[in-house]
Amino acid sequence: MFAAMALVVTWLGQASFRFDVGGKRILVDPFFAEHEARLYPPESVDEHGAGVDWLLVTHEHIDHLDPYSLREVAARSPGLTVVAPAPLEAMVRDAAPAAAFAGVHRGERVELPGAGSATVVPAIHGRTVADGYPDDPAFVGFVLDLGGTSVYHAGDTIVTDTVRRALAPLRVDVALLPINGRTHYREREGLVGNMGTRDAVALATEIGATILVPYHWDLFRGNTEWPGRVVDDAVEAEAPLHVLTLRRGVPWAA
Amino acid sequence: MFAAMALVVTWLGQASFRFDVGGKRILVDPFFAEHEARLYPPESVDEHGAGVDWLLVTHEHIDHLDPYSLREVAARSPGLTVVAPAPLEAMVRDAAPAAAFAGVHRGERVELPGAGSATVVPAIHGRTVADGYPDDPAFVGFVLDLGGTSVYHAGDTIVTDTVRRALAPLRVDVALLPINGRTHYREREGLVGNMGTRDAVALATEIGATILVPYHWDLFRGNTEWPGRVVDDAVEAEAPLHVLTLRRGVPWAA
Amino acid sequence: MFAAMALVVTWLGQASFRFDVGGKRILVDPFFAEHEARLYPPESVDEHGAGVDWLLVTHEHIDHLDPYSLREVAARSPGLTVVAPAPLEAMVRDAAPAAAFAGVHRGERVELPGAGSATVVPAIHGRTVADGYPDDPAFVGFVLDLGGTSVYHAGDTIVTDTVRRALAPLRVDVALLPINGRTHYREREGLVGNMGTRDAVALATEIGATILVPYHWDLFRGNTEWPGRVVDDAVEAEAPLHVLTLRRGVPWAA
Repeated sequence: MFAAMALVVTWLGQASFRFDVGGKRILVDPFFAEHEARLYPPESVDEHGAGVDWLLVTHEHIDHLDPYSLREVAARSPGLTVVAPAPLEAMVRDAAPAAAFAGVHRGERVELPGAGSATVVPAIHGRTVADGYPDDPAFVGFVLDLGGTSVYHAGDTIVTDTVRRALAPLRVDVALLPINGRTHYREREGLVGNMGTRDAVALATEIGATILVPYHWDLFRGNTEWPGRVVDDAVEAEAPLHVLTLRRGVPWAA
Repeated sequence: MFAAMALVVTWLGQASFRFDVGGKRILVDPFFAEHEARLYPPESVDEHGAGVDWLLVTHEHIDHLDPYSLREVAARSPGLTVVAPAPLEAMVRDAAPAAAFAGVHRGERVELPGAGSATVVPAIHGRTVADGYPDDPAFVGFVLDLGGTSVYHAGDTIVTDTVRRALAPLRVDVALLPINGRTHYREREGLVGNMGTRDAVALATEIGATILVPYHWDLFRGNTEWPGRVVDDAVEAEAPLHVLTLRRGVPWAA
Repeated sequence: MFAAMALVVTWLGQASFRFDVGGKRILVDPFFAEHEARLYPPESVDEHGAGVDWLLVTHEHIDHLDPYSLREVAARSPGLTVVAPAPLEAMVRDAAPAAAFAGVHRGERVELPGAGSATVVPAIHGRTVADGYPDDPAFVGFVLDLGGTSVYHAGDTIVTDTVRRALAPLRVDVALLPINGRTHYREREGLVGNMGTRDAVALATEIGATILVPYHWDLFRGNTEWPGRVVDDAVEAEAPLHVLTLRRGVPWAA
């Protein structure tokens, strides 16, 4: 029997997370670039983007695949491998030509030696609203086994049977889920939607997570959600899980 | 110059409203029957269901077209006319054979002599989730001109361009809107969705309502919403309207 | 260097917590008794109240010093010591005559061999509203050092300079705080108040906690609070801490 390795999770805002485990560092969807719709400045790439071993990308939208972040993280991380859906290879290589690239497909399990593994799961989102939330291989989530703790990062996705079926056989301890929802008027603004707070609670419950961490509620003007709603929805549903609302930039020992 | 006739609105829970104007009484979607999923008992049919002139129905679901209510209201209302989408004629006549029936179509304007009129507008909902939110003439809303005040009762509907286009040329002072939203897990339970809180605020704003009254957040276990969310969403959106959360059974002089 | 011992925290509802660390078990304010104002049944005393080493009491109110819980826990815990404010000695000995009793005073540090220690801090509450929130030695909180993690259980208290001064020199990692607030009408019902959600966020911030866990929002009809408000208040304040809303009965590895 081995004890689990200590895992430290640092939320960097929106869908961006840093994981430190066993001396390895993983970033998911880093977004260190400035952007006119930002409600707060980006976290420091010097602090969070150096010495990164793996940079995981869930899909191509700017707040998830940010060329500036890829370039700047690669420049500070000699051993970097970018892990992204295979269809995004050109975008990733263009942004970070010096980094190794691992194109992944749904259902695959990618080893992260010394840290754990990443199982690739589907995400149902879309490049544009007009895509109609297709089942597109360029959109994924990851179930990360990091030092013995299983963390699901959903990417950007609504809940569908495709998502639920892919997760059913996997163990999840901590569910990191988007909560900003999907509305007619936001779609008219070009904002492709995600699950809302009630679906996040129900999905986390169904997959057996003990802790639900909401994300994607904070960054862009006009696309926010109140995270307290997740809490009250979980209470209303008597969901058997804790809801953890992280503060950006403050490490959490998971 | 004549003053507008006094209009009194009494919410009876869920989508059910009573309007008193010029000595006339109108009910929309009365639901006086018991039901196992009710979170509170029905209002009194003796108090609210007697002497009714028009009973308007938006669609066939039990909390909107309740055969018990139709029968009991008809028994207490000698001059009753039931106004409902034409495809529901058989259901209505079966429930209240003695009452007059007016089958209506989207786009029509129905006169309510002595009270005002009702303009029929589309609602996008569905008998079952599998229907996929079709554009079905059996689902409507009403824009009621009652003593000079224009009140939009949306029925059960999501927001779509069809709904928006139908409302665009109409004046609306008071928007009565469902807010319980549409989620994957509720749809799995067979619950056809409606607009959520943010879309309700945006729609009320777009159609120029001065007052937004949320409904359909309160009645059925497992299909509720917190009405305070509409308030916070309106504040966040800086929407130029008042949000009025009515108490069931307490008259409001509109 | 010693690794921190694993600490597991299980919330049992209201102010009641179970701590497991280094093979030792600690309960704070257990309340396993039935009560007419309960909104949910008590947790199982067999599951949570057996083999307890220390039972800490913050003050004499029934949801904190419950004679039934003291008796039943003592019956299942041969090595039990009850730690309570010295003025409560008679009440404790009366409820659990067989258990050891340690009467404590504010400012003292009590060793909990094999688990850590408990530093006694003031709480400002009152037996009745008429007491006027006095500085009374019968009301305390505890700063628990459990396996290297510092957990502040505030008891029932408002925030005052007395409370803040006592906490200032102490390190706190996790702040367990009541959030049900203090209102005129609840005081008229005989309910002595506590800090509300905003003061909980501000106090947790001031004492340097990384995690704020709200409690005392759930149990008694007429004395609840929405825990989501703590989350939204923390976001509004940009408080540099995480907010963790625990689910009753589900262990949390702190």
